[in-house]
Amino acid sequence: MIKVLDHGYVKFTEHWGSDERIIESARMSTDKGFLGWGTEEKPGDEKLLSYLWKNKHSTPFEMAGMTIEIQAPIFVFREWHRHRTQSYSELSARYTPIPDVNYIPSIERIMRNSNGKNKQAGTIKGAAEINEAQAELFRQELIQTCEMSEERYQRALKFGVPKELARLHIPVTRFSKMRASANLRNWLGFVTLRYADNPQEEIRDYAKVVHDILTEKFPRTLTLFDEDRK
Amino acid sequence: MIKVLDHGYVKFTEHWGSDERIIESARMSTDKGFLGWGTEEKPGDEKLLSYLWKNKHSTPFEMAGMTIEIQAPIFVFREWHRHRTQSYSELSARYTPIPDVNYIPSIERIMRNSNGKNKQAGTIKGAAEINEAQAELFRQELIQTCEMSEERYQRALKFGVPKELARLHIPVTRFSKMRASANLRNWLGFVTLRYADNPQEEIRDYAKVVHDILTEKFPRTLTLFDEDRK
Amino acid sequence: MIKVLDHGYVKFTEHWGSDERIIESARMSTDKGFLGWGTEEKPGDEKLLSYLWKNKHSTPFEMAGMTIEIQAPIFVFREWHRHRTQSYSELSARYTPIPDVNYIPSIERIMRNSNGKNKQAGTIKGAAEINEAQAELFRQELIQTCEMSEERYQRALKFGVPKELARLHIPVTRFSKMRASANLRNWLGFVTLRYADNPQEEIRDYAKVVHDILTEKFPRTLTLFDEDRK
Amino acid sequence: MIKVLDHGYVKFTEHWGSDERIIESARMSTDKGFLGWGTEEKPGDEKLLSYLWKNKHSTPFEMAGMTIEIQAPIFVFREWHRHRTQSYSELSARYTPIPDVNYIPSIERIMRNSNGKNKQAGTIKGAAEINEAQAELFRQELIQTCEMSEERYQRALKFGVPKELARLHIPVTRFSKMRASANLRNWLGFVTLRYADNPQEEIRDYAKVVHDILTEKFPRTLTLFDEDRK
Repeated sequence: MIKVLDHGYVKFTEHWGSDERIIESARMSTDKGFLGWGTEEKPGDEKLLSYLWKNKHSTPFEMAGMTIEIQAPIFVFREWHRHRTQSYSELSARYTPIPDVNYIPSIERIMRNSNGKNKQAGTIKGAAEINEAQAELFRQELIQTCEMSEERYQRALKFGVPKELARLHIPVTRFSKMRASANLRNWLGFVTLRYADNPQEEIRDYAKVVHDILTEKFPRTLTLFDEDRK
Repeated sequence: MIKVLDHGYVKFTEHWGSDERIIESARMSTDKGFLGWGTEEKPGDEKLLSYLWKNKHSTPFEMAGMTIEIQAPIFVFREWHRHRTQSYSELSARYTPIPDVNYIPSIERIMRNSNGKNKQAGTIKGAAEINEAQAELFRQELIQTCEMSEERYQRALKFGVPKELARLHIPVTRFSKMRASANLRNWLGFVTLRYADNPQEEIRDYAKVVHDILTEKFPRTLTLFDEDRK
Repeated sequence: MIKVLDHGYVKFTEHWGSDERIIESARMSTDKGFLGWGTEEKPGDEKLLSYLWKNKHSTPFEMAGMTIEIQAPIFVFREWHRHRTQSYSELSARYTPIPDVNYIPSIERIMRNSNGKNKQAGTIKGAAEINEAQAELFRQELIQTCEMSEERYQRALKFGVPKELARLHIPVTRFSKMRASANLRNWLGFVTLRYADNPQEEIRDYAKVVHDILTEKFPRTLTLFDEDRK
Repeated sequence: MIKVLDHGYVKFTEHWGSDERIIESARMSTDKGFLGWGTEEKPGDEKLLSYLWKNKHSTPFEMAGMTIEIQAPIFVFREWHRHRTQSYSELSARYTPIPDVNYIPSIERIMRNSNGKNKQAGTIKGAAEINEAQAELFRQELIQTCEMSEERYQRALKFGVPKELARLHIPVTRFSKMRASANLRNWLGFVTLRYADNPQEEIRDYAKVVHDILTEKFPRTLTLFDEDRK
């Protein structure tokens, strides 16, 4: 279990396939199997893997994959779910009261981002530059938003408001939980788009962890992936 | 534009294909085209359409489709986006401050649901039955949650908190906006699951409108669809 | 490796997930894990699995899956590939000469089908009923088609005709080879459509084997699947 | 209807969406609509379209699409169907005798390819370079393969061999027919992979026509696409 943000995590559940299996699948096209990775003097299937990757022969990378469990704020899941090639199974606040765990960004995070590269995601037009006291105030106010909405949420549940309506109080910074499963090709698509410069820092933190777990399970493929992105 | 909930809507953008086109596509398999719908005495392609539908020959229904624009609360979009066969383009609170429009359920709605069929989505264990005064109190508290989080959201934006973080205050009852596009087969899949007994009333209201627009554009297909569901 | 038809096979490569994992994933929605299958007196998660299946909560079944290798005639692969939710890696006659292995149906098969249920796939209008001698003659002629096209194919290759063109001689009864990978939900979709009454006997034979391997790997899910089809 | 190869064609059926609609969809994210393409001095939405394209914001390109009808040899369809994001409705030789129309490559084509760039698809090891007489001989032999298999196919049908088995004689150079439908993003994926240097010349010819029809319907998007590929 790898911690992400103040209360989130990524937990590895299972993977299937391997770098070798990718080669085996690619070799279906010429009716051969995996021949060995080779050495520096006598290169072997390393070369084929690299060829597949560089020429976007993506099917063999669909013969491997991974399932993980993720705890992340709702606004992160909202971005994550746009990746329609993954399978999701998420906690439902319709069915069960959602625990009172919320993401409160640090002062450094709040100030770092306001000067960040992605202007569209930055401050509104005409806003002054934020100072530390204001960043701290934002944190305090966000904590209040979470506390007061939680209070009203619990009261509503006790009144007998149905769970599916009581949850309307919940802010998007509340943590939720899910399992996500996809083949390697699609995980690499996720990492390409989210472990990059443009995405919001919070989802990038998760994408980095996904990248690192993939590196452990599919080291040769991820080496090619990393070279390609330089 | 058809109104849904207190401040939401569905707006038809465009459709393609038609009942006739579905027949034409199905007829590719036997190298014939559309022959005419026939009359009561002399049945024509009505019969083929019905055969396709009943035998789950679903490909021809992928040769038609529709794009719509939707305004709905975030918690509705969260359910909607699980339909991974539609294409989505949504308002991003990362890029632009999200307007202060929120869904506040009516007293009838709050009380109706607490006695509803879907127990899992209903009240928590041990809760008493809700009365009208409590339902009204819930409404007032939800309005307060919306007002106070909006106030803090605006203050954060003025301070210079980046839009992508200021939005963390927003509750899931806030309205967002998107375009959604899919082929007819996939729209029917959406309507099957969401215009049904089990889903939350709010998304069912939207699914009903989708169903009605489809009925206008693909009347013969939707007649078969409706018969099948009886 | 399980033999299918005269020269085909299905070879199990790998599976992931399990009946338990499906439950675990489904339980994400209520924030619980797998609780045990239970006994006859005290039913456990068997009941939940059945509920998921019967109510078409299909996402948890996407958290498991399987990769297999298949040798089958080209006309079978042509039907198979319409299942666009599987990943395929096939032998390419563009890159390597395709081995001279062909499907020749038995006399029983030829005669059985001509009296089969699916009239559309049956004999042309006006054809007499086939007798054994004619069935045998068809077999002999099919063998000749295979032999003569193979002869010309080899000659073309020797002449220096590029592999990608020389292959134009090949009849659709020639065997090819591939790996196919999909999640359990999609494999069950394949089995539903192909291990049924309507499909051509040859692909049904393969679908039956897929069904049997799935039964071995996911016994509880397949029990539900089988009950549902009765 | 645009002719391709000796007896094939692509026929435009229908398109939906437009360059403007793509902009409109992209603008959902900032809650604005289409503002006008602008002029050289005062650039308008041309710039946004280009931004979307270059930064792989691909969703807006899913809000447009196209359906076409194609007649092409079976070996071309076999490659085409690997694009699993298109919807297909094809002539079925299981249901109707497939017309006797076959692709016979020209002498220029046969000789051109044997010296082509893609070595894997070229001649087998040890084959001499093909001369014109041999290329002509290959053509003649391919014509014979087609004639003789057609003869046996017709005889089998008359005998009462079911259509689904009689078709086993058919070589992969026989023309079939289908409708294909996809959104613009997926059509561009098809054109990227197939209207390129590496694919077999025959499918590239079809991909070029798809490219040209898209250019007519979505001129600004295709201009960006073409620039990107230089």
